[in-house]
Amino acid sequence: MARPASTPGRSGAVTRADVARHAGVSDAVVSWVVNGGPKTVSEATAARVQDAVAKLGYRPNSTARALALGSTTMLGLVVPDSTNPFYAEYAVAVQRAAAARGYALLTISAGSDAAVELRGVLDLCDRQIDGLILARGTGAGVVGELARRGVRTPVVLVDSAAPHPGHLTIGPDATAGIEAVTDHLLTVHDHASVALVIGDTTDVELDGRQSGWLRAHARNRRSPGAVERAPFTRTGGYEAGLRLLTAAKRPTAVVTGSDLQAVGVLRAAREQGLDVPGDLAVASFDGTEEASFTWPSLTTSRQPVEAMAEAAVAAVLARDLPYEHRTFATELVLARSCGCGTG
Amino acid sequence: MARPASTPGRSGAVTRADVARHAGVSDAVVSWVVNGGPKTVSEATAARVQDAVAKLGYRPNSTARALALGSTTMLGLVVPDSTNPFYAEYAVAVQRAAAARGYALLTISAGSDAAVELRGVLDLCDRQIDGLILARGTGAGVVGELARRGVRTPVVLVDSAAPHPGHLTIGPDATAGIEAVTDHLLTVHDHASVALVIGDTTDVELDGRQSGWLRAHARNRRSPGAVERAPFTRTGGYEAGLRLLTAAKRPTAVVTGSDLQAVGVLRAAREQGLDVPGDLAVASFDGTEEASFTWPSLTTSRQPVEAMAEAAVAAVLARDLPYEHRTFATELVLARSCGCGTG
Repeated sequence: MARPASTPGRSGAVTRADVARHAGVSDAVVSWVVNGGPKTVSEATAARVQDAVAKLGYRPNSTARALALGSTTMLGLVVPDSTNPFYAEYAVAVQRAAAARGYALLTISAGSDAAVELRGVLDLCDRQIDGLILARGTGAGVVGELARRGVRTPVVLVDSAAPHPGHLTIGPDATAGIEAVTDHLLTVHDHASVALVIGDTTDVELDGRQSGWLRAHARNRRSPGAVERAPFTRTGGYEAGLRLLTAAKRPTAVVTGSDLQAVGVLRAAREQGLDVPGDLAVASFDGTEEASFTWPSLTTSRQPVEAMAEAAVAAVLARDLPYEHRTFATELVLARSCGCGTG
Repeated sequence: MARPASTPGRSGAVTRADVARHAGVSDAVVSWVVNGGPKTVSEATAARVQDAVAKLGYRPNSTARALALGSTTMLGLVVPDSTNPFYAEYAVAVQRAAAARGYALLTISAGSDAAVELRGVLDLCDRQIDGLILARGTGAGVVGELARRGVRTPVVLVDSAAPHPGHLTIGPDATAGIEAVTDHLLTVHDHASVALVIGDTTDVELDGRQSGWLRAHARNRRSPGAVERAPFTRTGGYEAGLRLLTAAKRPTAVVTGSDLQAVGVLRAAREQGLDVPGDLAVASFDGTEEASFTWPSLTTSRQPVEAMAEAAVAAVLARDLPYEHRTFATELVLARSCGCGTG
């Protein structure tokens, strides 16, 4: 009877049978203690089992547990591009909110190929994840496909600009955020109008950023400036910036739909020999760390990433998802790119 | 017998039994076809099953399949900080390499709390992932803990500066990379010496970046410049930059251990009223997209992220991991921050 307690099983690791033997209980009792059910055991027995688990370094097979419990304690997250610092910060916040509840996160950076993206999302759902968090841009097309294929994974759409029928959507109050930053440029810095660099893929009607920008002009009885559409990337912002700054009527102020676009506009201004904010005031939307390290640092509407990520995780794990649109207020961060402050 | 073929099972989705009924075979035959074994079936039968799978939109339960096959077709990736654009680009490359082989990726952005990090890694291993890719900084401490707990998950250490006993390590040839960029500053731009901003957590003896920097000075018979240690972040580089630029003997050139540190040094130089590259030449290590959008854009040693990610995924899925250190050559990218080129 001198068999060492830690004699390895097939995979070399300590097995449930090893724990049962050590604690003097049946395999089933070990399972009940480790999985918290379905049957209960006496406190003394549970303590003996937990003692053996700790002593032998037993780690339960979570695949078997997932099959038994019908939950993998995994969530899926799909963002268009996790090298965009906004989505990188969002993904870290979702990972933290998930981990705090004992969930791991499978992440897909979808890229621009819709077929590749759909395959990735279906793969996540096939893995019996307990919930799927889809970012806008990604979301709308994919949820239709999932419904068509009978996939029942709970879905929350984040980074959403507008309601989506049949789904809980979460997003920043982009209309109010862009309105505030545009109003700041018009009233505090007295620009006649503000140009807008906005995404090229979003539905114009639905993108709250454009309506916020329009609203600020209307409220101040000014004619809105030029609009340039471009991808939400540094290169997109750079090219849109060049178009604006080489036009016959050069704007004196520009607001962008994302921090990365503003980084590109700053480069375009430099190349045109323009001083920011002297010749061109710039403001952005997102509030990532990169925006505070540009020169000059960027005035921006900061999105409450932590709060939105927390809400998305809590919601997707809730049994009854309400079909509503939840918006989160952004924070106006004033820096030197609009003419405020220093640095 | 008019029961619709797609009558939902417990979870509302098409079940294996639905497919079996539709194809006129047993449940087991469906499983053999879907899982590629263990038994084989005739081509005609397989075709009938596949036809039913397609027609009914059946998606197999991958949790059950994972239990049967002993593989979850999931890999784990742990990086110190996925909002660092270098790790963000690395994670996307690993995700792509994994997806190309049918594997999904569980990612952890570890942050600075070692206990939180270890718990996350153990959680990944409990999920029966087929392999774990650990980034340096993370790696060394964690692999010891895993071994102590009897975890047998295959591990590859990436972003490694040096061999690690008992493990396959993959990393850039940082010594040659930093040597090349330092040599460029010393010889082409004729600086008397080059200061170094390097990480504060890495083992000095093992960090190839510092030895490459020393080697370039030795080769050119120059005394090495000052060394500042700082986190691999924008703020870390900013603070190290301020220390260097306010010292009695201000350097004329500085090389950093990461792009983010160089972004911080650029800001410090600006705040000190110094022109880059006129008053201070700057070069970095990584070659992320952010480095090409700074002003001026950064001369850098670009890491071959795609190739390293591909090698890491291929290796961790290989059955027999050799215990060796594989290095990948970096590419010297010349831009305006060192005095070369424009923009």
